Amino acid sequence: MKTDKVLIFDTTLRDGEQAPGATMSAEEKLEIAFSLERLGVDIIEAGFPVSSKGDFDSVQNVARHIKNSFVCGLARCVIKDIDAVIEAVKLARHKRIHIFLATSKIHLQHKLKKSQDEIMAIAVESVKYARKRMDNIEFSPEDASRTEKAFLYRILEEVIKAGASTVNIPDTVGYSTPEEYGAVIAGICKNVPNIGKAVISTHCHDDLGLAVANSLSGVQNGARQVECTINGIGERAGNASMEEIVMGLKTRSDFYHLSTNIKTKEFYRISRMVSKATGFIVPPNKAIIGANAFRHESGIHQDGILKERRTYEIMNPEDLGMPSGEGLVLGKHSGRHAFKDRLKSLGIELPDEDLDKAFVRFKSLADKKKEIYDEDLVAIVEDQGHLARVAYTLVDLISTSGTNIAPQVVVTISHKGKKQTKESSGDGPVDACYKAIESVTKLKADLLDYSIKAVTQGKDALGDVTVKVIIAGKTVIGRGASTDIIEASAKAYINAINKFVAQQNLK
Amino acid sequence: MKTDKVLIFDTTLRDGEQAPGATMSAEEKLEIAFSLERLGVDIIEAGFPVSSKGDFDSVQNVARHIKNSFVCGLARCVIKDIDAVIEAVKLARHKRIHIFLATSKIHLQHKLKKSQDEIMAIAVESVKYARKRMDNIEFSPEDASRTEKAFLYRILEEVIKAGASTVNIPDTVGYSTPEEYGAVIAGICKNVPNIGKAVISTHCHDDLGLAVANSLSGVQNGARQVECTINGIGERAGNASMEEIVMGLKTRSDFYHLSTNIKTKEFYRISRMVSKATGFIVPPNKAIIGANAFRHESGIHQDGILKERRTYEIMNPEDLGMPSGEGLVLGKHSGRHAFKDRLKSLGIELPDEDLDKAFVRFKSLADKKKEIYDEDLVAIVEDQGHLARVAYTLVDLISTSGTNIAPQVVVTISHKGKKQTKESSGDGPVDACYKAIESVTKLKADLLDYSIKAVTQGKDALGDVTVKVIIAGKTVIGRGASTDIIEASAKAYINAINKFVAQQNLK
Repeated sequence: MKTDKVLIFDTTLRDGEQAPGATMSAEEKLEIAFSLERLGVDIIEAGFPVSSKGDFDSVQNVARHIKNSFVCGLARCVIKDIDAVIEAVKLARHKRIHIFLATSKIHLQHKLKKSQDEIMAIAVESVKYARKRMDNIEFSPEDASRTEKAFLYRILEEVIKAGASTVNIPDTVGYSTPEEYGAVIAGICKNVPNIGKAVISTHCHDDLGLAVANSLSGVQNGARQVECTINGIGERAGNASMEEIVMGLKTRSDFYHLSTNIKTKEFYRISRMVSKATGFIVPPNKAIIGANAFRHESGIHQDGILKERRTYEIMNPEDLGMPSGEGLVLGKHSGRHAFKDRLKSLGIELPDEDLDKAFVRFKSLADKKKEIYDEDLVAIVEDQGHLARVAYTLVDLISTSGTNIAPQVVVTISHKGKKQTKESSGDGPVDACYKAIESVTKLKADLLDYSIKAVTQGKDALGDVTVKVIIAGKTVIGRGASTDIIEASAKAYINAINKFVAQQNLK
Repeated sequence: MKTDKVLIFDTTLRDGEQAPGATMSAEEKLEIAFSLERLGVDIIEAGFPVSSKGDFDSVQNVARHIKNSFVCGLARCVIKDIDAVIEAVKLARHKRIHIFLATSKIHLQHKLKKSQDEIMAIAVESVKYARKRMDNIEFSPEDASRTEKAFLYRILEEVIKAGASTVNIPDTVGYSTPEEYGAVIAGICKNVPNIGKAVISTHCHDDLGLAVANSLSGVQNGARQVECTINGIGERAGNASMEEIVMGLKTRSDFYHLSTNIKTKEFYRISRMVSKATGFIVPPNKAIIGANAFRHESGIHQDGILKERRTYEIMNPEDLGMPSGEGLVLGKHSGRHAFKDRLKSLGIELPDEDLDKAFVRFKSLADKKKEIYDEDLVAIVEDQGHLARVAYTLVDLISTSGTNIAPQVVVTISHKGKKQTKESSGDGPVDACYKAIESVTKLKADLLDYSIKAVTQGKDALGDVTVKVIIAGKTVIGRGASTDIIEASAKAYINAINKFVAQQNLK
C-alpha cells in the first residue's frame, strides 16, 4: 500500500472550522470544497455531522457535489455519530468515515474515565459497526503522541483487523518534537504486525510552531497521508499548513523523494478564499502564500535578485498562482540598483547626476515612510522638474449618512489649478464618495479590494485605508489616512487615481 | 564557552524591519528595544547603520539607552560599514558588531563575482580591522547552509583566529530541512579545530515553514545562540519566531535540556507592540501568542478542559502574560457542558427543562453566527422570559463630516420603550457618534481598542467593527456590521454597552 506518493487529507472544513470564530456558511463550505477538489486534494473532511444540524447539512451538500475527492465525515465511537456520517456522505462518489477515540492516559483518566481494555473494546466494536456499512474506514487514537506505546501498537493492530484501512496518529495538543513524532511513526511501522494493510496518516497541531516539521518527519518515517488545512487554520494555534508541507516536499524533492497530487498553482486563490470565509487574515510573513513571501526590500537582496533570482529565491511565485511583478519593494533598505530599475520600469531614465539627487531624496523620504510607492517616485521626479504635475488633490469633502437616509457626499477636487465640486449618493458614504470622485476625474475605476485599519488606539484613532482599483485594465493601489474614515477612504481612492495618471503621463 | 544556556539574539529591529512595509519610527524602535531588554534578550541587533541616516541614528539611540542587553549593529565586509557600526554603538554599555559576507557558490558567482580565496581574504581582513576597535565580534557567512562544507569550515576557522567570538550560520533563503541544518552545525563542531573559542549561532528563515524546527535542530547539535524576531517578522516569510523557540525549549525542557534568560510573561505585550509598530497583524492561529492559541470551541475539547486543563493545554497562558478568562469560546461545536458553565459565569442558573430549551436555541443560533457572545446568551434567556429586557437599540443615526467642518452626529436610541435623540460633535464622525451615544446612556465608556475590517469585496463591502471598552472597571467587547462604517461603529459601541448592562442586571 505504501508508495512514494503522499495522500493529502484536507480538514479545513472540519478541524479548521473548529477554530473559534472561523464558522463558515454552507455556501462558503461548498465553494471551498470545489476549490479543494480542483487543487487535487485526495480526501476532504467536510465536517462532524452529529455536532449540529448545520454541520450535517453541509457535509451532505459537499458529498452531493464533489466527484473526484473522497468526502469524509468525523464520528466519535458512538452509534449515533457513525450513523450520522453514513447518512451524510451517502451520496458521495468516494466516501470515508473517520472514527476517533482518545487513548492517552491523561484522557482516559480525566475525560473518558475508562480503562485501556474498555477503550479497546469500544474502538474495535465501532470500527466493525462502520465496516459493515462502508468500505473506507479511518481510525484515530486521539492524543496518540502521548499514548503509552504498547497500548498504541495493540489498538492499531486491532482496529486494522476490524477493518480500518487508514490509521491516523494525532499529535492532538501539539506537544511533540520532530524527532519524537518521527519515532512514533517508525515505531508503528516496526511494531504493528499488520501495518502493511493500512496507510499511516499524520495529524499535527502547531502549538509549538512545529506542525509542519512534525508532519514532514512523519512522512520521512513511513506515513503516506498528511492531514492538514489551508493557511494552517484549526483549533488553538491551528493544524499543519497544507501549502507549507506540499511546497516543502516539492521544493526539496531531492531530500524527501516524495510527491503529492496537488496542483500548486491553485494555492494562492484558495488561501485567499479561506481567509475571506473565515475572517482569518493571512499575515504578510506567512510562509509560501503571505503577501511578502516573495517580496524583497533590502538593497543587498534586491541587487542579488536582479543579478540572479536563485540567490534569494528557492520557489517560483508563479507555481503558487501568485500575482507577479511585485517582488522588489522600495524602502529605506533599498539600494541604488533597485531604485534605478524601478524608475526605468516607470519609463523614467535620468542622467547620472539627476539620478544621484533623486536617490538622496528617496533615501530621506524612505526613512520617514513605511513603504515607497511608485507615486512617491513620480513626486520626486516631478519636484526635480522632470515631469508635469498631473495629480488630483482633495480640497473639501462633506459626507452625510444615517440609518434612514441615503448617504450624500460632496467633494471638491483641484486638478491642474482648477477646482471642481460634485455631489453623489450611494450604498454607503464610502460608495457615495467614490462616485462623486469618479464624476470629477471621469476615470472609471473598479474597486477590487478595500481595507481599513485603525493605526492608533482610542477615539482619536487614525484610520488607514488601502484600496486596490483597476483602471483601464491596470491595477493600482492607493492609501490614505485620516481621523475621519470617510476622508481616509477618499484620499486612498484619489491616491490610486493619481498613480494611474502619473504612469500614463510618463509613457 | 558552551553552556546549557542558549543566548537569545533578537533581530526584530534589523532583519525584522527589512520586511517590506515594516519600517518603524525611531521612537517605536526605542520603545521596542526597552521591551526587549525587559524581556531578557541577550543581544539586540538594532539596525544596519550604513544603510541610511535614519538607521544610523536609531542604532545610536538604542545604544545610548539600553543597559542590560548587548547592542549590535550590522556591517558588510566594507570599512565604511564597520566604521558606521563602531560609531553608532559607541555609547552602549555592552556592544557587538555583526559582520557578514556571502560564501555560497551561487552568491560568489552571480552576486559578488569573486573566488573563495578572495572572499576568505576580505572576511579575515574585515574581522581583524573590527577586532582592533571592538571586543565582541560576530561573523556570518551568508547563505551558509548552501555553502560548500570544506570552504565553510575553513573560513570559520580563519575568522575565529582573526578575532570573531560568535559565528552565525544563516539559512539565508530558508531552504534547509531540520536534519540538514542540524548536520551543518554538527559538522562545524566536529571539523572546525578552534570552534571551542566561539559560540555557534543559528539564523533561520521561514520560507518552507521550518525556521523554528531548524533553529531547534541547531541548538540540539551544538549551537548556543539563536537569532530570531518577535512574531517571526523579517524578509520574505520572516525569521524564526522567538516566542516559539523559547516556549519550545521551556515546554519541552525534558527533551532539549536547555534554557534561556527570557522572561516569558513579557511575550504577549511585546508581540502586540511589534504588531502595532509594523502594522503586521498577528493571526489568531499564530502559535504561542495568537488570540486563539488558548481558545477552545469544540465540545469535546471544552469538556476535556473543564475536567482537566492538561487534556488539551500544554502551556499556561499566564506564563505568556496573556489576558485570561477567554479560553472557552461558544460556537456551533460547543456542547452542553460549556454552555451551562458559561451561563453560570453570567449568574444564570436555569432548571434542567429550561436549560434544554435554551441549548436547542443556542445550537440553532450557532449554526448561523461565527461566534456566540455573552450577549447572545442573554438574549436567549431574555426571550425565554427569565430576564427583563434592558438593551439599547439604535433607531436612527445621521452623520455629517468633512475636510473643513466639525463632524456632527445625531443619534436616536430606544430604551425600555422610550426614544431619545442626542447630538454631538467630536474629533471625527466615530468620536462624535460615541459622544452622542454616551449622552443618551449616561454610561462613561473608555475605548480601549477599535478595529474595522471589510467583510466583502467591492464598493458594497460590509464594514465589521469591533470595539473593546471599559465601563465601571469592566472590559466588554462589542461588534457591529453595516455597509455604512459609521453605523457599524455605532452598533458595535451599543452592543458593548448592552453587554455591560445585561451583566449588571443579572447580578
